[in-house]
Amino acid sequence: MKHKITFQPYDRSIEVEDGEILIKAALEAGVHINASCGGAGVCGKCRIIIEQGEVEGGLSEMLSNEDVEKGYRLACMSKVKSDLVVRVPVESYVDASVLNLKTSPRHTAEIKPFDFEELKEEGLFIPPVEKKYLELPQPTAQDNIPDLTRLINYLNITHDEHRLLVNLDVIRKLPDMLRKAGFKITVTIVRPVRKDGRSQIVDIEPGDTTDRNYAVAMDIGTTTIYGQAIDLNEGKVISQYGDFNAQISYGEDVISRIAFAEKKGGLEKLHKVVVGTINKILGKIIKQAGIDKNEITTITLAGNSTMTQLLLEINPSHIRLAPYVPASNFYPPFSASEIGIDLAAHTIALIYPGISSYVGGDIVAGIMGSGVYRTDKLTLYMDIGTNAEIVVGNKDWMACTACSAGPAFEGGGITFGMRASKGAIEDFAINPVTYEPMIITKGNVKAKGICGSGLITIVAQLFEAGVIDNRGKFNRDLGTDRIRKKDDIWEYVIVKQELTGIDRDITINEPDIDNLIRAKGAMYSGALTLLEEVGLSIVDVEQVYLAGGFGSYIDLEKAMTIGLLPEMEPDKIVYIGNGSLRGCKMNALTNSFRRQVSSVVKMMTNFELAETSSYMDHYVAALFLPHTELNYFPKLKKRLDALHKRKAVKGR
Amino acid sequence: MKHKITFQPYDRSIEVEDGEILIKAALEAGVHINASCGGAGVCGKCRIIIEQGEVEGGLSEMLSNEDVEKGYRLACMSKVKSDLVVRVPVESYVDASVLNLKTSPRHTAEIKPFDFEELKEEGLFIPPVEKKYLELPQPTAQDNIPDLTRLINYLNITHDEHRLLVNLDVIRKLPDMLRKAGFKITVTIVRPVRKDGRSQIVDIEPGDTTDRNYAVAMDIGTTTIYGQAIDLNEGKVISQYGDFNAQISYGEDVISRIAFAEKKGGLEKLHKVVVGTINKILGKIIKQAGIDKNEITTITLAGNSTMTQLLLEINPSHIRLAPYVPASNFYPPFSASEIGIDLAAHTIALIYPGISSYVGGDIVAGIMGSGVYRTDKLTLYMDIGTNAEIVVGNKDWMACTACSAGPAFEGGGITFGMRASKGAIEDFAINPVTYEPMIITKGNVKAKGICGSGLITIVAQLFEAGVIDNRGKFNRDLGTDRIRKKDDIWEYVIVKQELTGIDRDITINEPDIDNLIRAKGAMYSGALTLLEEVGLSIVDVEQVYLAGGFGSYIDLEKAMTIGLLPEMEPDKIVYIGNGSLRGCKMNALTNSFRRQVSSVVKMMTNFELAETSSYMDHYVAALFLPHTELNYFPKLKKRLDALHKRKAVKGR
Repeated sequence: MKHKITFQPYDRSIEVEDGEILIKAALEAGVHINASCGGAGVCGKCRIIIEQGEVEGGLSEMLSNEDVEKGYRLACMSKVKSDLVVRVPVESYVDASVLNLKTSPRHTAEIKPFDFEELKEEGLFIPPVEKKYLELPQPTAQDNIPDLTRLINYLNITHDEHRLLVNLDVIRKLPDMLRKAGFKITVTIVRPVRKDGRSQIVDIEPGDTTDRNYAVAMDIGTTTIYGQAIDLNEGKVISQYGDFNAQISYGEDVISRIAFAEKKGGLEKLHKVVVGTINKILGKIIKQAGIDKNEITTITLAGNSTMTQLLLEINPSHIRLAPYVPASNFYPPFSASEIGIDLAAHTIALIYPGISSYVGGDIVAGIMGSGVYRTDKLTLYMDIGTNAEIVVGNKDWMACTACSAGPAFEGGGITFGMRASKGAIEDFAINPVTYEPMIITKGNVKAKGICGSGLITIVAQLFEAGVIDNRGKFNRDLGTDRIRKKDDIWEYVIVKQELTGIDRDITINEPDIDNLIRAKGAMYSGALTLLEEVGLSIVDVEQVYLAGGFGSYIDLEKAMTIGLLPEMEPDKIVYIGNGSLRGCKMNALTNSFRRQVSSVVKMMTNFELAETSSYMDHYVAALFLPHTELNYFPKLKKRLDALHKRKAVKGR
Repeated sequence: MKHKITFQPYDRSIEVEDGEILIKAALEAGVHINASCGGAGVCGKCRIIIEQGEVEGGLSEMLSNEDVEKGYRLACMSKVKSDLVVRVPVESYVDASVLNLKTSPRHTAEIKPFDFEELKEEGLFIPPVEKKYLELPQPTAQDNIPDLTRLINYLNITHDEHRLLVNLDVIRKLPDMLRKAGFKITVTIVRPVRKDGRSQIVDIEPGDTTDRNYAVAMDIGTTTIYGQAIDLNEGKVISQYGDFNAQISYGEDVISRIAFAEKKGGLEKLHKVVVGTINKILGKIIKQAGIDKNEITTITLAGNSTMTQLLLEINPSHIRLAPYVPASNFYPPFSASEIGIDLAAHTIALIYPGISSYVGGDIVAGIMGSGVYRTDKLTLYMDIGTNAEIVVGNKDWMACTACSAGPAFEGGGITFGMRASKGAIEDFAINPVTYEPMIITKGNVKAKGICGSGLITIVAQLFEAGVIDNRGKFNRDLGTDRIRKKDDIWEYVIVKQELTGIDRDITINEPDIDNLIRAKGAMYSGALTLLEEVGLSIVDVEQVYLAGGFGSYIDLEKAMTIGLLPEMEPDKIVYIGNGSLRGCKMNALTNSFRRQVSSVVKMMTNFELAETSSYMDHYVAALFLPHTELNYFPKLKKRLDALHKRKAVKGR
């Protein structure tokens, strides 16, 4: 159920779901309410008056009885339960003109769902594994052909199956199983990836088990591994689980993992450890789905080039040494159990091929899972992270590259940076007159730090409010104690110590901002360079696909404001979620994906930014908010122009 | 160097090799000399006089000085060193007409050699594994494609190699080996068995190792396992070794092995034990050949259906239970190490497919190795043994069957039967007047028993001398104490106790002869029935191929005399040796064999004798010496007619 909320004196309305927190609704509506404790209900700053309608909660010892009677509530603790008229007290206004200012509404990317029916309609569903139930004639003295010949002949005649290959294990099981099951068995047939290949009988089971046919998809991330069990008959994910890659104990990023792998026994250790995590996840999703591991016939995995080589126990040294050569961009199918994965010996593992040392199988999986390789539109695919990968192209061609953005997007190198866990500031607005902040934390607890998406929003808001300039330097003359110099470094105090969940003020300083500018600059200039290499420019991009866990939290307009994303209509930016996992799922589900993988890899031209002379120029030009070339960001330019005009008027 | 020996008063000559034992030369020449100790020099019966020329040895304390001066020597101890005239003393003659009698000369089958050059000339040599030495360009910043892509591209361009598959292990080795070897490596490429298949890179080595490319062939016999290492560049066997199949401890024949396999843990045990023997033999042939096990890329094995299933750890129960169904007549290629064979993981094992429970892969290998499937001539292929297999056909069609001959050919069920080892009577002649024997043992030691080929010769000689009739019953009226009744059973004393290597007389009795008649009757009637099933008769057979270790010892004319082999010119009977090993060698050596295996299997129609109503009639008719239908044996008939006429004359 939705409710309409009107904020006064802004006279701005928004519809939200029943139960939404009022302060989030305000942020969504672009209404600034001072708020410093992240929604924990302890700062008492977010006082509002409920003029019409009802909220649940919102009471606090920081409100007097008189206040409560007048309709005062704390916005961060009030849940919307009906249509409302809410008045934001005006005591903090300095200038009525602020009423015309609007915090730009939050826009996160639309999530592109995965649609099995669509896949079927497009003729892309070719089952990679099928089960057939057979009632074979029993042998007699006149008909005593070998058991396997009986099976093959019957499949020939009654199921039009030809040129079948058979596993040795199937032959081992066949004689006794046939007789125990009265010659009524189910065969599991794996279809060839190549059209001219041969189908293979990989398993037999007594009786009719055709309704139990499963696959697994798994994304091997540097930080996190996600697995999904898939019902191949229904085309549905039936269970999923994610866990930290246990390799983290041996290094946070790929470079430190490679360094560990170079130590004696290191490669074996990292291989074992990641297989351990995979098996743990498998155990969870198998149990959750209520299936037997022997019913899983295929598993598809994807990871970046380092994760892939570590999983397959291939020395990754040369990935980090110039000229950065991976072992292979193609890996043959193998028995999952061969590398220690706890699945049946007949379970075939496929691993997505990569492109280069820094554009790995996870990106190819993402390109396939998101459909970039099938779209007409010129698409910019960005996987934002420490190691950022960028792909541009469509169904006719694709180009890719990778850049090292540094760890800022994951909270690294930021004084109060943290991962997007409880207590991280994920949303922020600033009153452009008083410079007081409005913050919301993950889990609505006292703030502990700033996560990547929060950082983007904070910097964008500080910039649009004129608190920092286009080089990320603070305006020293705004007359607020929130901007201060400490230990010779200028900073903005986001949350004062007493309202934090830690023992000191949470701030953002110039070096933090500089790190973010470098990170976004690397990504944006990477995209620009890549486009230029193929004779295009950023304005030719028709849609942007954002991949990776990070993508779902990004406030798109803020990301455009700092120049991380090109400026475009938000609905042209699509969040595809964990693209790698998505690609694995599709691959596990249909042979059309398996058949196309190698041609997709061949379609993708890799560019090494280090070998592209223009990259450094683009990078330097991108070290501004949003960019030296403001014409790429026309809407922002308009807003900034308006702001300057207003300030000029005010300053007169 | 050869010497001419003339035996008097027979006036019969023969050429033999320098150093040949004189008594063997006599037997070869068809000259009877009494000899009871097998050539051990202890009975003193084989006295002869050297009239011209020289022998080495032949002296004995059983000869007086006077004898020696007169030229007497013991034939069994005299080695031929020059042309000789030898007089056989006539004291034992009763009738001068005996001079006209001739012990039929010994004919063993000609051995058909294996000819690699012939294979090449016929266009049948298609290397199954090739090595290529490559000097790859080193990667640079401008050319940093993955290592495997570099390798594949180079093979594409410089060696016209396309659609290559690659093992995961190769990718694992590639990065470090390339750099250590300065990008100069040798790749091992396995060619596809199917023409439309794909070549596969299975190994890489640093530097140029193209001159080291090896395969192994191995025959998995119920009793003995033989292995050969083959140089694939030269097409030559470079080492070989045979040893008892260690499964023997768990049963002598396939039926007892199957019984053991049915016990708890029995199958695993027999599998392990046979792999143990294989590994022992591999160790020997690898060491002997001076090669490294990693240089062996392929191994081909063959065995009967039970041996095959035990090797692959497939329950063989249903082979011995009606309706006698084997698990499969086809087994996929597998990694040798997968079943415990001590070879590299990349070594592909191929195992010959069989036809039925009792016509196994060893016979298919024999058919291919001997070339039956390529000949125009109607060929009868016989593998003589406890489990006898018979194939008839040519390049256009083939039919096969198996019969249980019983163990008589291997010495089983024969009172003094033994394997063809030291002390076994392997040759025998009888004086048709005195009925005194002439025996030669294996190793020229005192006799310990009778081996299969000796048994055939003894029965044939007894029959032709009229000592036994065509039902194998003794003529009770010959007036020699060598024929006697003991414990109600009639027998012939071959060697008297004091001249044996054991503690009693060595004899052959009527039940022994009956067992041999049943064995040869089973084989002959099997061949007859099989021919009849395809609309032919025994006289249509153009050549006979004898396979198995046993075949090389058989005196062909004796085998015809008892009716084991059809009567024909001895030069139409070809000994192909260990046909199974021969087939394995050819398979390991050339892909033309690998490609044809399945069509050969499909060409072969299996007949179950038990399901063929005429078999029992044929069998009963074959329980005579040589057969009820003597017209199948015209030469023997003539000899027997002459004998009867002579006896009739003499009796007058």
